[in-house]
Amino acid sequence: MSERTAALDPDVIEDHEALDEDYVLTASFVEKVVDAADDGDGMRLRSLLEDLHPADVADLMGFLTVEHRAVVVLWLPPELLAETLPELDDGIREEVLERVPNATLAEALQELDSDDAAAVVEDLEDDQREKVLAAMPATDRAAIESSLGYAEDTAGRLMQREVMAAPQFWTVGDTIDHVRAQGEDLPELFFDIYVVDPLNRPVGGIPISGLLRAARSVKLSDLMEPVNEIAADTDQEEVAYVFEKYHLISAPVVDGAGRLVGQITVDDIVNIIQEENREDILRLAGVADEDRGSSVPEIVRSRVPWLAINLFTAVIGASVIGVFEGTIQQIVALAVLMPIVSAIGGNAGTQALTVTVRALATRELNSSNAPRTFVRELVVGMANGLILAPIIGLATAFWFRDEDWKIGLVIGTAMVLNLIVAATIGVLTPLTLSKLKFDPAVSSAVFVTATTDFFGFLIFLGLATLVLL
Amino acid sequence: MSERTAALDPDVIEDHEALDEDYVLTASFVEKVVDAADDGDGMRLRSLLEDLHPADVADLMGFLTVEHRAVVVLWLPPELLAETLPELDDGIREEVLERVPNATLAEALQELDSDDAAAVVEDLEDDQREKVLAAMPATDRAAIESSLGYAEDTAGRLMQREVMAAPQFWTVGDTIDHVRAQGEDLPELFFDIYVVDPLNRPVGGIPISGLLRAARSVKLSDLMEPVNEIAADTDQEEVAYVFEKYHLISAPVVDGAGRLVGQITVDDIVNIIQEENREDILRLAGVADEDRGSSVPEIVRSRVPWLAINLFTAVIGASVIGVFEGTIQQIVALAVLMPIVSAIGGNAGTQALTVTVRALATRELNSSNAPRTFVRELVVGMANGLILAPIIGLATAFWFRDEDWKIGLVIGTAMVLNLIVAATIGVLTPLTLSKLKFDPAVSSAVFVTATTDFFGFLIFLGLATLVLL
Repeated sequence: MSERTAALDPDVIEDHEALDEDYVLTASFVEKVVDAADDGDGMRLRSLLEDLHPADVADLMGFLTVEHRAVVVLWLPPELLAETLPELDDGIREEVLERVPNATLAEALQELDSDDAAAVVEDLEDDQREKVLAAMPATDRAAIESSLGYAEDTAGRLMQREVMAAPQFWTVGDTIDHVRAQGEDLPELFFDIYVVDPLNRPVGGIPISGLLRAARSVKLSDLMEPVNEIAADTDQEEVAYVFEKYHLISAPVVDGAGRLVGQITVDDIVNIIQEENREDILRLAGVADEDRGSSVPEIVRSRVPWLAINLFTAVIGASVIGVFEGTIQQIVALAVLMPIVSAIGGNAGTQALTVTVRALATRELNSSNAPRTFVRELVVGMANGLILAPIIGLATAFWFRDEDWKIGLVIGTAMVLNLIVAATIGVLTPLTLSKLKFDPAVSSAVFVTATTDFFGFLIFLGLATLVLL
Repeated sequence: MSERTAALDPDVIEDHEALDEDYVLTASFVEKVVDAADDGDGMRLRSLLEDLHPADVADLMGFLTVEHRAVVVLWLPPELLAETLPELDDGIREEVLERVPNATLAEALQELDSDDAAAVVEDLEDDQREKVLAAMPATDRAAIESSLGYAEDTAGRLMQREVMAAPQFWTVGDTIDHVRAQGEDLPELFFDIYVVDPLNRPVGGIPISGLLRAARSVKLSDLMEPVNEIAADTDQEEVAYVFEKYHLISAPVVDGAGRLVGQITVDDIVNIIQEENREDILRLAGVADEDRGSSVPEIVRSRVPWLAINLFTAVIGASVIGVFEGTIQQIVALAVLMPIVSAIGGNAGTQALTVTVRALATRELNSSNAPRTFVRELVVGMANGLILAPIIGLATAFWFRDEDWKIGLVIGTAMVLNLIVAATIGVLTPLTLSKLKFDPAVSSAVFVTATTDFFGFLIFLGLATLVLL
């Protein structure tokens, strides 16, 4: 088929519509893949998939069922499969890896940068991992094993070993000649040149646009700027913070002796930032760990513990109500109204909690402004209470005007007090967890709503018993 | 003072301790700045501040009070002030801008890239903006005005106009020579070279590490790869998605006719991703818009509307209880237990909601897998219910064994049903909002918990009336 007619081939035209204008796979494209997989039409599948970006293949996998994924994996060209693996969600990647023959996998992994290859190998079951590594050339194997030697979620695991380093005494011309000659051994993409001393310790960095701009005779030591070194055992969240704060594009990673062992680039950081954000937002809602590849049992396991804890704290809240059974027996209106006090308290507490967790995550909050933040939240809680209390107080007094107007006074007062409790507990819980080196997002919400429920019921029913009986 | 003694000067040693090992300003450093500001010791302030990175100055401002910020701004070296402005939180930036003389500001802005300068000018009050722009050279003014001509939160506003473009027929050598000669007019940092046709439309891109690697005689058209063009009117969230998905470091921005008008670099994208995540997490908790620079009245304005809506929905929930006053009068235990049913429902609903909002934000969820996701959540809700119902059912039957063991049956059944309601509403609410082009995070939570409260009370008290009376 000539190039000319290719453009008119309806199949080819259709394939160009894989993505909508928002770079999202279209439902009609996903359907086509599903149809081809159902028909077992491998050639059609391959022609649909081969021009996709690996990120789009990974997206596609997320939209498919387990059965359809199995067929797609079978027909994915090997290089595309290799590049797709690091892009997949964890759950789906594990599933896909089980279906790929070890020899194919060993070959595919050699196509990847050492950090991406290690990330894939990390997900393999122990015996598959051994077999795949054994099938790889010694140097590739060594690179992956060395990467896996660093703890999970550290800079060492994140970095690629390929890096562009140059001694201080080189000129711009020396450096460019070196890159032209040694291109093969350098990282596929690099953004900074690290200038190292004779012990291979970074002493400076040069963005390559700066290198291009300079005359060939300029010495690297005259061009270089201070560089943010990252120790290989630094936690990845820490790494992301430094990149974000100082707008870094790449940074050198050093071992315990300060020697250059690799580099981290900003594209990996973007993934980590999203991952950390995902964790924060899900943990605040009491979801442990799940993604679109998770099975129903995995999702249940991720969510039931939180609900069970919540069940326990709800029973504690209920037992407070139990203490006042006598009061409720006499004034049933209290049973009607008490959830209002606890609901508003829970919401206000969650507001204070979320703002605090976020400020801790972005390090806008630390011990130097914690007292001020706490006082501010208390004032906000009181102000919110003073705005809302008259509304609910008057509404309640009118609603139960046939029983006792003072019930409006009780609910209004209880609401102000509970909003102060909410502010206090909403700020102090994450601050305390963070001080104790726990993740301030995890389990904060259950504690905050349990506390506002408990005190909401206690204050409201207690006041009612004092004032109305 | 010689270099040698400088290292021993206690002040200098102290200054090096501005940051702790986590790159966060130390409390003792902040205190020193506060003391110097209180003493009005400008020289001391300047010596403390001058070696800080602009991002750290911005951080410092966040830890200070309004009064201390005013003193610090006064003593910040002008270039450092300029570079700090784009790093500040919105609220603090507005406050700082009001204190800087227009002439100083006009001078400072000329130090910045066009996107950063525009971001600052955007925050000025109308009359200050006119005066500052009038005090700038015509070319800088034109660049800023053209940037402000694009709608807020679009690629046009985000891009910098400085960009490295080269015609297709150039060789690697031509390009390097051009960069060396024209370095001044090029962006301070660039990562890709955009190859353009005679109408200045991008036809490809070359990472500059690729340019370095190639021989001088190689033609750019042989080296270039396809490039992700971004239309100037694209929403910034869309831009961030494309960068993240395809791991871009920079991308060319084009006007309506496809002509190259600027570039966006990944460091700006990292900020946007954080900003969008912040919005999502705060909106889910019912916080409209606030940051650490917000005053108490601003925070109250940001939170009270949500609490007021929640008050309204809580009253609706309470009125359901009101319908069953007669039942509660006869069995007060129901008043004790009903908050348990609504609390678990609210939590399960929030779990489903948060997972759905997150999947929509990362585009893992769209119309092609929405039905499957919905069914999965229903199954999860039912499974959660079947796990938790026996626990609470048996506990309740034991707790109220003197009254009626069937109350355990009622609460268990109500909980299963309410968890199914929670799953349904938790998924459908954000999906519907998103379909209607609303932000699925905003106001979802209030609707979800209101619904689970309403149905929790209705199902529990309704069942109790049927079974126990």
